[in-house]
Amino acid sequence: MIIVMKPGCSQEDVSHVAHLVRERGLKDMVIVGTDRTVVAAIGDERLCDMTAIESAPMVDKLVPILAPYKAASREVKPTPSVIPIGAGVEVGGRKLCVIAGPCSVENEKQILTIAHAVKNAGAHALRGGAFKPRTNPYEFKGLGEDGLKLLAKARAETGLPVITEVMSIDQVPLVADYADVLQIGTRNMHNFNLLVAAGRTGKPVLLKRGWSATLAEFLLAAEYIMNEGNPNVILCERGIRTHETYVRNTLALGIIPAIKRESHLPIIIDPSQGTGHAYMVPSMSRAAIAAGADGLIIEVHSDPEHAMTDGAQSITPQVFAETMAQLALIAAAVGRAAK
Amino acid sequence: MIIVMKPGCSQEDVSHVAHLVRERGLKDMVIVGTDRTVVAAIGDERLCDMTAIESAPMVDKLVPILAPYKAASREVKPTPSVIPIGAGVEVGGRKLCVIAGPCSVENEKQILTIAHAVKNAGAHALRGGAFKPRTNPYEFKGLGEDGLKLLAKARAETGLPVITEVMSIDQVPLVADYADVLQIGTRNMHNFNLLVAAGRTGKPVLLKRGWSATLAEFLLAAEYIMNEGNPNVILCERGIRTHETYVRNTLALGIIPAIKRESHLPIIIDPSQGTGHAYMVPSMSRAAIAAGADGLIIEVHSDPEHAMTDGAQSITPQVFAETMAQLALIAAAVGRAAK
Amino acid sequence: MIIVMKPGCSQEDVSHVAHLVRERGLKDMVIVGTDRTVVAAIGDERLCDMTAIESAPMVDKLVPILAPYKAASREVKPTPSVIPIGAGVEVGGRKLCVIAGPCSVENEKQILTIAHAVKNAGAHALRGGAFKPRTNPYEFKGLGEDGLKLLAKARAETGLPVITEVMSIDQVPLVADYADVLQIGTRNMHNFNLLVAAGRTGKPVLLKRGWSATLAEFLLAAEYIMNEGNPNVILCERGIRTHETYVRNTLALGIIPAIKRESHLPIIIDPSQGTGHAYMVPSMSRAAIAAGADGLIIEVHSDPEHAMTDGAQSITPQVFAETMAQLALIAAAVGRAAK
Amino acid sequence: MIIVMKPGCSQEDVSHVAHLVRERGLKDMVIVGTDRTVVAAIGDERLCDMTAIESAPMVDKLVPILAPYKAASREVKPTPSVIPIGAGVEVGGRKLCVIAGPCSVENEKQILTIAHAVKNAGAHALRGGAFKPRTNPYEFKGLGEDGLKLLAKARAETGLPVITEVMSIDQVPLVADYADVLQIGTRNMHNFNLLVAAGRTGKPVLLKRGWSATLAEFLLAAEYIMNEGNPNVILCERGIRTHETYVRNTLALGIIPAIKRESHLPIIIDPSQGTGHAYMVPSMSRAAIAAGADGLIIEVHSDPEHAMTDGAQSITPQVFAETMAQLALIAAAVGRAAK
Repeated sequence: MIIVMKPGCSQEDVSHVAHLVRERGLKDMVIVGTDRTVVAAIGDERLCDMTAIESAPMVDKLVPILAPYKAASREVKPTPSVIPIGAGVEVGGRKLCVIAGPCSVENEKQILTIAHAVKNAGAHALRGGAFKPRTNPYEFKGLGEDGLKLLAKARAETGLPVITEVMSIDQVPLVADYADVLQIGTRNMHNFNLLVAAGRTGKPVLLKRGWSATLAEFLLAAEYIMNEGNPNVILCERGIRTHETYVRNTLALGIIPAIKRESHLPIIIDPSQGTGHAYMVPSMSRAAIAAGADGLIIEVHSDPEHAMTDGAQSITPQVFAETMAQLALIAAAVGRAAK
Repeated sequence: MIIVMKPGCSQEDVSHVAHLVRERGLKDMVIVGTDRTVVAAIGDERLCDMTAIESAPMVDKLVPILAPYKAASREVKPTPSVIPIGAGVEVGGRKLCVIAGPCSVENEKQILTIAHAVKNAGAHALRGGAFKPRTNPYEFKGLGEDGLKLLAKARAETGLPVITEVMSIDQVPLVADYADVLQIGTRNMHNFNLLVAAGRTGKPVLLKRGWSATLAEFLLAAEYIMNEGNPNVILCERGIRTHETYVRNTLALGIIPAIKRESHLPIIIDPSQGTGHAYMVPSMSRAAIAAGADGLIIEVHSDPEHAMTDGAQSITPQVFAETMAQLALIAAAVGRAAK
Repeated sequence: MIIVMKPGCSQEDVSHVAHLVRERGLKDMVIVGTDRTVVAAIGDERLCDMTAIESAPMVDKLVPILAPYKAASREVKPTPSVIPIGAGVEVGGRKLCVIAGPCSVENEKQILTIAHAVKNAGAHALRGGAFKPRTNPYEFKGLGEDGLKLLAKARAETGLPVITEVMSIDQVPLVADYADVLQIGTRNMHNFNLLVAAGRTGKPVLLKRGWSATLAEFLLAAEYIMNEGNPNVILCERGIRTHETYVRNTLALGIIPAIKRESHLPIIIDPSQGTGHAYMVPSMSRAAIAAGADGLIIEVHSDPEHAMTDGAQSITPQVFAETMAQLALIAAAVGRAAK
Repeated sequence: MIIVMKPGCSQEDVSHVAHLVRERGLKDMVIVGTDRTVVAAIGDERLCDMTAIESAPMVDKLVPILAPYKAASREVKPTPSVIPIGAGVEVGGRKLCVIAGPCSVENEKQILTIAHAVKNAGAHALRGGAFKPRTNPYEFKGLGEDGLKLLAKARAETGLPVITEVMSIDQVPLVADYADVLQIGTRNMHNFNLLVAAGRTGKPVLLKRGWSATLAEFLLAAEYIMNEGNPNVILCERGIRTHETYVRNTLALGIIPAIKRESHLPIIIDPSQGTGHAYMVPSMSRAAIAAGADGLIIEVHSDPEHAMTDGAQSITPQVFAETMAQLALIAAAVGRAAK
């Protein structure tokens, strides 16, 4: 942490700040510049609350030096993590992992039809929501445990591992009984109790970035899970909130190289949530893989016009199959494999 | 809902869309314009999922007409709601409600000192966190039930009703036992299970806007609480995420007249979270009241340099008292009273 | 500037960076922390391009310490600037300056009617556009010089100084002939050639913040004007682009205390552009003055339904008069005067 | 345009609005829904200012139906435009167009070295700034005409067409004398007088999106140029302002499929400005082409540590050559060619 003093600060002001630094167990070092005096706090600033120092007289601002995350950082673990999610499927290795399926599990016929279709097109895992977080309380909230049972049936028939969302700590044991991967949705990235509960299951967790979370907040949420002894975190970018209106969310693919630089955790992209429009999903899927993503999670529905949720952003099995064929070529161009 | 067709759509495309509208129980009305054909869907579009219609061939876009919220809207209840929060204090009436106190309850001496100080300066209620949502898992997370007990003691000594945050469904019964008002923080505005659990307690709920939530999402979150038979929701704006860096959050006070126009619920402002810097708190407090807010929630600490959380944005009891004096004048200018 | 090295950097990497610092005429100081090594560059980093140092091997990131602005900063001039704009009116003193008038000058009767109305209600200056920047090329672009002549006539009749926008360097001499204050609009805040040309006239310049400009960029734009020997810059906040949709722009009033802390220049608020809706203008006007703004610029039209531009955000003379009465009370509460 | 009335509006309110619609030369159609009454305005709403209707009593909101752009829209010209930029190079055809070169022309050796290097690596055109818009008035502003002469020399040596920025209307004739393509930078996207002046030269114009411009505003800016009889507009996305801090700008690649759907104009991507960090440029270049972009504009410098501008985001000729090799594979995967 660098503490920048205001112009005109006295020696006493600087000493007071240096004292506050030492109180927190760090070493202080005063640098007198031509325009400003700064106090460098040397040591692990992540172990104490430094921000209160901003309240001291004649402090202008605080400038953190260390990123606040540790366990998720490349600094701690320089080699990329590869997360096994069941049935021999991995996320983060040379082979991409494409997760596909409907937004919501609606009924047996629907989920089985789509599961077989995405399997045939080359998907590596199946998605489907049984508990649905809905902004609007009047809308369909999922089939609950019945939905989980149908996912298990689809897994039994196709061999695809199953990813499904858990919304609340009381659902964790139930969802963990059925799912291969627990998904934490964007609205819950900051639901720290849920992160802890999911971490304790030991199951792989797919963690979506909150729609206005910073990169650091995203990795700190991953650490909530990892700190429970669960290293199996898969990061997922699904678009951020911006001023743009031609998309439901702005898909910020720059996070792919940024995460690869900062963290050892794998990152996949959700081009369905990340745009909100089916017509954009194939191009954003290709872009994600070209940028270096470890995989994708895509909403596929065999009858989008009648989907109970997210119809506007669901692609058909046919479009999914065409996209998978293109992805194989892109993957090869970046030294990855789609199959 | 207005469904805008693409240029060049056929009669068959339009009929298909009209059919999709009728399938959802609404009436269709086709309007052929000079440049575009649109299909108006007449009826309560909030009762069914219309968005899937975007998937139909030759549909360009959907344009919703009705706001998605109901119970929170002025349309349903034209008169402002006044929420009693205990000890004769109300939020939403002619008299402002200023809630003040430390970010976190740290120890008995701290909370009692601050409680008495804010009481003496004219605060109407006491805030203080016992369960703290922390972005960083390595930071202080609050005293838990011990903190709640200290808040109860401060209430007993000062007569101030107590507002404190509940982070997770399993904490709801405990927090409801101690608190006069349950606070749902910005990170949990979309934690729908928590909204429901808080709603069921019947206690007043202070609901903070998510830092990238829209106005509609904010009111829909309120409806999650209200739909449990609990009309006592106090809205709270605490700043949004933008590109600005001289603040921790951008305080968007335009939401005050917007909420007053759209909803009957009271709205208060958090100038501490809403800026992140103590030096901005007095001016933003004055601005909020001038804009028509029903109250404020302000972080006050008697030793900000050593506050365990949020020191940088906590004002001292002295600054709080000076601010309260200014607020009394502003309140009078807008036909409100501070005492 | 603080240059943070990556973990594992060699002594050679650090020496190389220190060399790059010295090449730029600054002094280097190496600080070896427990987790990271940083190189502090001591001296006026504003005089050279430091950012290229990010390209050096093993550099993690650069952290600027000095704000990039100088002439506009309080550091250089600690006392607030008071800008005279003609007819004895000043901006930045104890007395507020409220500028009011139509978005566009439409015809003689319109501008004179409105000018008299706002004068009677207590406005201190008259606004009105003769050259209108329009996002849409098919819309009304203003009366040009005829509009300027009508503004001059309104000034002659009412005694109000006139503020009007200049869009392009070739309009500067003409507009400067008629106007008391040149307005640089939000779309031109980064039009550096226009800033220079306006600066050279010596006339006071009302500079609106670009809708996604940072505070530093805003003050640097002011310095473009000031560097031409023209200290008479009035800053104007008019809302930023965010994810919010209930407003056309998000009015970020936190900029008022921030500018007061960072700069000696006066700042006024545009609640019309800053919200886009007439119903919000009175409350945001009150909020701005309560927050400490030096004045307002408000769109007033006697027939908003038929205004050629900005009808939706124009208030009537009657609403303006009511607002002025409230502002007088608010001003008194913050130690200012409205008259 | 759909005009939504407030609940409880009278027949008189509706008639008044219908009258306002007819006054503007459009046809009105009243639709009485179960919850709301709306008035549809039928006709080309782009030809008149509809927004003032929001001021009428009991109007809740206006909902535009038609996109405001025309000449740039696919509706008017369904086939993609291919823009010739000289020396047989085109933008928008099957073959990609990669423009590369330094941010600024610094001296003869620098520009010639880089021009040859990018040519050898497969670039199709040369970029280089002679007039530099600088946020900070104290920084290097380019070599001016001397820079243009050096660009012409580089073109003569390499055969690459030259793209360079024009900042102000008075520079237009000079820059048009030397350049093959005029670049309008992000800060000037809303500088309408400059758009008109550039349009009148007849030269191809590379138009960068303003950093908070909407898609509609971007296309309307293109129409300012096209309305001068110049159809040769190349759109360029270069990142938007968001809350993200690990990038200088957030590169929103979803604009590629959106523009392809809405407009016939070609779109290229600037991954240098669009991220601000050299390490992200290769992956974002690949992503852009995979998403369907028609080309790229990339900052390349042979000594980024000493670049006078934008060193942090400039890649070396070697990295550029490696990137071009990858792009050839990606291009093939999406049915395009890099050579």
